[in-house]
Amino acid sequence: MKPSKLILVASAATLSIAAGSALAQFQKPEDAIKYRQSVFTVMANSFGKIGAVVKGEAPFNKDEVAKNAAIVATLAPLPWQAFGPGTEGGKAQPGVWSDGAKFKAASEKMQLAVADLNKVAQSGDLESIKKSFGAASQTCKGCHDDFKKK
Amino acid sequence: MKPSKLILVASAATLSIAAGSALAQFQKPEDAIKYRQSVFTVMANSFGKIGAVVKGEAPFNKDEVAKNAAIVATLAPLPWQAFGPGTEGGKAQPGVWSDGAKFKAASEKMQLAVADLNKVAQSGDLESIKKSFGAASQTCKGCHDDFKKK
Repeated sequence: MKPSKLILVASAATLSIAAGSALAQFQKPEDAIKYRQSVFTVMANSFGKIGAVVKGEAPFNKDEVAKNAAIVATLAPLPWQAFGPGTEGGKAQPGVWSDGAKFKAASEKMQLAVADLNKVAQSGDLESIKKSFGAASQTCKGCHDDFKKK
Repeated sequence: MKPSKLILVASAATLSIAAGSALAQFQKPEDAIKYRQSVFTVMANSFGKIGAVVKGEAPFNKDEVAKNAAIVATLAPLPWQAFGPGTEGGKAQPGVWSDGAKFKAASEKMQLAVADLNKVAQSGDLESIKKSFGAASQTCKGCHDDFKKK
């Protein structure tokens, strides 16, 4: 067996396991879509509250910002489990499935950025929060541009 | 001014502040409904994963249970801000607004129960997790019976 074929077999097995666990977790594709959209809705709310502070539209309460950053960081790893095979639809573009590696890389970039935002937010330094929030926003936007329907 | 009147004035002011912040946060009542339903959807997913372990339908992985209990505990304080005046509807029964004190008490009971579940889950003891999960389930059910449409 050539190495390339071996990799293909291994990938198929991995995909199959992923599909199996997605099926076990979400009874119907609509359930997966609802779940991932729900995660993004809750995440966007807390992220938006930090954004209002960063833009000077809301007063800076460092405990509130830290709390919201922790919520975003807790939620960031969750939606990806609900993009398994057979869950196409909702606001997701087909590229999520046809270019899975790029989507995964974008999702990981976001998770790292919001983990950093959470760390910085716990320190309570507004200038650092602004910088880290800006970087995290870019990862949201980048992924939305490529993978979210307008 | 009689004490009872003073309390009424104070309550009205508190409600008004709450309404103001609810309006500032959610542009439309639909946004509040979407937000609270999203929180419950994500919470139910993680709670359900712990439930599967408790019922013996899924293997006990203590790190997974601890992670899901932390997600539930992080989300539990969030939905209530989205039940402000003028956000009636969705799956919520009118009692949420007409019997606000009872609803608040039920929400606090749930938050305490899932905080306990989170604490117990971090310890990794399955028997304690089962007991605490059962108690938390009862607070979900109690509130749903009274305040959620069938």
